Amino acid sequence: MIQKELIGDLKLKWDHMQQAMQKINAGGCLLTVDVNLYYTTGRIYSGYFYLPAEGAPWFFVKRPNGLTGDHVEYIRKPEQMAELFASHGLEMPEKLLLEADELTYNDYIRLQKIFNPKETGNATAMMRELRRIKTPYEIEMFRISAERHAKTYAEIPECFRPGMTDLEFQYEIEKRMRKNGSIGLFRAFGANMDIFMGSILAGENAEVPSPFDFALGGGGIDASCPLGANGTTLKEGTAVMVDMAGNYTAYMTDMTRVFSVGRLPELAYRAHQTALLIESEIENIARPGTPCAELYEIAAKITEKQGLGAYFMGTKQQAKFVGHGIGIQINELPVLTPRSKDRLEPNMVFALEPKYVIPGVGAVGIENSFLVTETGLEKITQFTEDIIQL
Amino acid sequence: MIQKELIGDLKLKWDHMQQAMQKINAGGCLLTVDVNLYYTTGRIYSGYFYLPAEGAPWFFVKRPNGLTGDHVEYIRKPEQMAELFASHGLEMPEKLLLEADELTYNDYIRLQKIFNPKETGNATAMMRELRRIKTPYEIEMFRISAERHAKTYAEIPECFRPGMTDLEFQYEIEKRMRKNGSIGLFRAFGANMDIFMGSILAGENAEVPSPFDFALGGGGIDASCPLGANGTTLKEGTAVMVDMAGNYTAYMTDMTRVFSVGRLPELAYRAHQTALLIESEIENIARPGTPCAELYEIAAKITEKQGLGAYFMGTKQQAKFVGHGIGIQINELPVLTPRSKDRLEPNMVFALEPKYVIPGVGAVGIENSFLVTETGLEKITQFTEDIIQL
Repeated sequence: MIQKELIGDLKLKWDHMQQAMQKINAGGCLLTVDVNLYYTTGRIYSGYFYLPAEGAPWFFVKRPNGLTGDHVEYIRKPEQMAELFASHGLEMPEKLLLEADELTYNDYIRLQKIFNPKETGNATAMMRELRRIKTPYEIEMFRISAERHAKTYAEIPECFRPGMTDLEFQYEIEKRMRKNGSIGLFRAFGANMDIFMGSILAGENAEVPSPFDFALGGGGIDASCPLGANGTTLKEGTAVMVDMAGNYTAYMTDMTRVFSVGRLPELAYRAHQTALLIESEIENIARPGTPCAELYEIAAKITEKQGLGAYFMGTKQQAKFVGHGIGIQINELPVLTPRSKDRLEPNMVFALEPKYVIPGVGAVGIENSFLVTETGLEKITQFTEDIIQL
Repeated sequence: MIQKELIGDLKLKWDHMQQAMQKINAGGCLLTVDVNLYYTTGRIYSGYFYLPAEGAPWFFVKRPNGLTGDHVEYIRKPEQMAELFASHGLEMPEKLLLEADELTYNDYIRLQKIFNPKETGNATAMMRELRRIKTPYEIEMFRISAERHAKTYAEIPECFRPGMTDLEFQYEIEKRMRKNGSIGLFRAFGANMDIFMGSILAGENAEVPSPFDFALGGGGIDASCPLGANGTTLKEGTAVMVDMAGNYTAYMTDMTRVFSVGRLPELAYRAHQTALLIESEIENIARPGTPCAELYEIAAKITEKQGLGAYFMGTKQQAKFVGHGIGIQINELPVLTPRSKDRLEPNMVFALEPKYVIPGVGAVGIENSFLVTETGLEKITQFTEDIIQL
């Protein structure tokens, strides 16, 4: 029914979910959005996954998804779940968790009517909270993504030809990503966060603010996808920031490297070195218990000391954050912001991305994906961190 | 504030929306999901678009999106809209339309609290209904997409090398798509419909049913994206169905062509010719007023007459539809199903896709995008329709 290597991982996740449900007196949770189905069943399908606070899960499936077995029920519409609960003598939960931050209003209302619980709770909040702490299997997936991510980045210099635009450069990189196993999809939490394969920012385009909640922006090629490369020619003295997706498994690594066409102005190198200093400072002090806000403060202080505040995380619009959890979605918890109340915990995986935008030149800085271990951080995206001259 | 060539188009859309609102006594509609923002403002941003049933629209913007002017207000959180309504003397609508099939439950509830209308209605339903009928500007965008779509398809034979897999073939096509201006994003209405750049189906993989609501399936390369090419070697006697996205503008054309490695079994050619016959029969009879269900019936009858029922729209799982509206999303209205109550209307744009899956060989058939004119259909995706031998 489910691959052997996966079933142990899924059971571990179900256990954590049941503990979380019991803590808030929830009787069960019903999941249907892509990332939660993938997390709890190892696949994405049209249908539902139901986990009671105690006992085995149920799979309600609208179209064949490879699952068979006792607790797999084929349905045409969600209303049939109520009949199936009755015919199997399954208890309807008094408090039901539904994906309140992901389900559409009408879908939520429909499920609420079907289950008619005394109380509903937010499955999105619970799942995002649980998904912060990665399982051994998930960490293994990150390692595979990281390895392929680094392999692709090593091929980036081959993609460059003098006189090309950022887009032409990106298309070559995209093809190598795909050859190295990129699944292509880039999943984010929240509305209006669509992005295609990642972002390349060069020259003045690096200053264009993002209309979405991403760190940096770029104009993009169409108003229906206003982000990233915009056709800027990669001329002498341009910094080219490559932040292409690490979507080589469902667990995305996040990694940014900077390439230069010829030599850059000194300010660019100084800012880049400052980003590396921030990274190594954070690697030195971060461990389980470290407040996420402190990581932001370290970055802000070092930036200030170097007099680079005007360039930090943008110029015209400056993102007040320096990193974010990663996973099946690119923006999982925790978030490294000055206001974060979170602390690092073992088996969190996050991206740290101190970046500077240098007007007229482009963006510089670094981004790596880190695993929080029992004693500190482990960098899982290993690749040379200096500015690479093309 | 808005490009000149766009403003006329937007005003036309706003007029239609206001007429639709007046018919159902709605006082205003508030839009925030990507496709509706794009449709009504020509851009996607983090924020809201408010159109009262009478009068000029308002733009509430969370992050810079290029809009400036009298009715553009910057906000940090949606609650500020209530204050801005008050300070501008704007009337709060008694009946407010919200995107009930697209907004998350929590976002919907939050907006409902802010506006506190006596009644809410479904903006998703209204917008999908209006978006069925395309404006002259939108039709122009389709024509651009169609031209680039055909240009890419003409380059497909160059992508083939003997012994390659469906994936290797796809990566070459993807790169040509991008060079020809593909934006990359592929938008669909509804949950769990993620697909990357389109679909290539070859050999036995064409029989693998889709766990989503797409016509055909394919196993894909990862359980987090279970669709399309799966690494099948393109060996002699294989049909390769190419259904890659026409996302060259925000308005996607849909077009499928079949390529063969060497010669295919006779059944494949006979099925392909039957698909072409269905297409030409439908081109002959379809005009404004034709029931969409009738288009499906024509396809089903011709298929039956040819004794090809077992292969039509899949084998293990057969989709009961033969086409669908297209636009900013790949699955707009109308849908060409036996149960459809819709009739064709001028300026609808839809994809017609009679397809057959031949076990062990692959999929054959055709897909083109059609504009409904005052007198019939106009095929906008022009490219040779025979099976092309690689």
